[in-house]
Amino acid sequence: MQNLPAPVKRRIKALKQLQLVTTNIEAKFYEEVHALECAYYKMCAPLYEKRSDIVSGVYEPTDEQCVWESDDEEEGLTNDLKTKANLEDNKEQKKEESENEDIKGIPDFWLTIFKNVETLADMVQEHDEPILKHLYDIKVIFLESNPMGFVLEFHFEPNEYFSNSVLTKEYIMKCTPEKNDPFSFEGPEIYKCKGCVINWKKGKNVTVKTVKKNQKHKSRGSIRTVTKTVQNDSFFNFFNPPVVPEDSEAELDDDTQALLTSDFEIGHYIRERIVPRAVLYYTGEGLEDEDEDYEEEEGDEDDPDEEDEDDEESSPNNAPPGGKQQGTDPNDCKQQ
Amino acid sequence: MQNLPAPVKRRIKALKQLQLVTTNIEAKFYEEVHALECAYYKMCAPLYEKRSDIVSGVYEPTDEQCVWESDDEEEGLTNDLKTKANLEDNKEQKKEESENEDIKGIPDFWLTIFKNVETLADMVQEHDEPILKHLYDIKVIFLESNPMGFVLEFHFEPNEYFSNSVLTKEYIMKCTPEKNDPFSFEGPEIYKCKGCVINWKKGKNVTVKTVKKNQKHKSRGSIRTVTKTVQNDSFFNFFNPPVVPEDSEAELDDDTQALLTSDFEIGHYIRERIVPRAVLYYTGEGLEDEDEDYEEEEGDEDDPDEEDEDDEESSPNNAPPGGKQQGTDPNDCKQQ
Repeated sequence: MQNLPAPVKRRIKALKQLQLVTTNIEAKFYEEVHALECAYYKMCAPLYEKRSDIVSGVYEPTDEQCVWESDDEEEGLTNDLKTKANLEDNKEQKKEESENEDIKGIPDFWLTIFKNVETLADMVQEHDEPILKHLYDIKVIFLESNPMGFVLEFHFEPNEYFSNSVLTKEYIMKCTPEKNDPFSFEGPEIYKCKGCVINWKKGKNVTVKTVKKNQKHKSRGSIRTVTKTVQNDSFFNFFNPPVVPEDSEAELDDDTQALLTSDFEIGHYIRERIVPRAVLYYTGEGLEDEDEDYEEEEGDEDDPDEEDEDDEESSPNNAPPGGKQQGTDPNDCKQQ
Repeated sequence: MQNLPAPVKRRIKALKQLQLVTTNIEAKFYEEVHALECAYYKMCAPLYEKRSDIVSGVYEPTDEQCVWESDDEEEGLTNDLKTKANLEDNKEQKKEESENEDIKGIPDFWLTIFKNVETLADMVQEHDEPILKHLYDIKVIFLESNPMGFVLEFHFEPNEYFSNSVLTKEYIMKCTPEKNDPFSFEGPEIYKCKGCVINWKKGKNVTVKTVKKNQKHKSRGSIRTVTKTVQNDSFFNFFNPPVVPEDSEAELDDDTQALLTSDFEIGHYIRERIVPRAVLYYTGEGLEDEDEDYEEEEGDEDDPDEEDEDDEESSPNNAPPGGKQQGTDPNDCKQQ
């Protein structure tokens, strides 16, 4: 670049001015896409409502509503086997059937999803599981503009752990190219989030634990035991994220920044994939094939000691740099 | 899944029926996003036109149009140094200046981009370079629907290689969930493309080469030399892609499929990144930071012989499965 003749350098600056105009138009485009997302979420909302009713057992779908072809063949087979078994043990089946009648909706629907999706599973501790059994719906409320963003609503049945019926997590996005670095703009970006206060019932707060510590008196030498309350690992810490300082210039320490990055990713993922396709994460069909996200690496064989037979399978990396190989939703946004 | 009680299985089928409705609504959403893309491309078209005029030298930007702050400081420094040098060698500079006046537009603008972007650089052979020097614009023509798609137009100055002024590559997309696998739908997908005939001038076709072969007569034993024309590596093979059979059920062989996948990715990448941000690929600013696309791998340290000090830097992989870490344009689409 430095070696270019002056008139060419000058013209490149003119192209950059034009590029800045394009970038600002692009920001408007993303705003419209976000507005479309809001509109389409509203269109799907009645379907999500129906899903919630079926999950919680409020609504029992009709036979017609339960037809799903691809599974029917297997089902037929299972029924045949059952018929055989029936002859042998009719009583057992009767008992099972009457037990089945008591099952309300789809038990542990969201808990199962949380355990199926690795990143969420990493957050869920054993003591969270009985609480998450009461989660019967996650809703998204879109904030169209000023600020652009979304709220995740976690709906719980009345339970023995806390008195809230809804826990919320709000994500605020910005969709403006940065003054100092406009060309890094890639669309809406989450930059802060807000949790909510959980009204834990007495002794039920899983986000804290008490530890006992022995303290020795300086002069007297006597020992006393002190109980301290410290933070405990729990999914419910999700509702108490680090606060992003209002002053956007203030630098966050690396740990806090990493926590926030991870939090933004999870919030985005829940909105973008989990809520719209919950049943597929419940059955496992929606789980990403890890191979798909993995690209073959070229020219990585410079270590002669590393003989790896798998290398034979590697093919040249045809992917354009940064080009998405698999589809990405237009609702994808950047997380800080 | 198989172990679930029958009534729960039944309800899951109802959820799948609902999910199918959601998927079809999603397809409509993507159609609207594509329409928005068409509209916004039209909005940016005059800016791209201006860029093309500056690149080809048809238009010389005014001083006001060439202000670009961030570079100005460096520039100031360079000018200072130049002034010093001037005193020493004024004649040399005069000569340089008059030479600079002859430079039209931004020479090798697109060729430089092609050489900067790895995937494109891999396609460009040495014999392609003098031809690509004549490429002065790439335009996108959006096909809004029936079929949904886009055409890349490569505009060339009159040149000694072929008589076409424009070479075209057309990409056709589908935006319908597959009957047999509706839940794999992730938005518009390129499924076929069409090149164009290049009217090469005599002896200038770089996509073929002649090889000489000696043939021995079976009975007589005499040897004759035969000249055969075979395909030659060239960027211009991009305009002669494999044909996708009309019968969508027909299976393509692996090599052809790989060629097409790579071709679709490149076409998508040119439309999506290169054309809208050409100047940034020319200067190098738009090139992806490879680190960004690379995620740390966890639990990959089972080889005790492989002591890698870099491992100390690795942090747990916090990314949600499939969650995009960096922004992706909503115009991103899936390639077959």
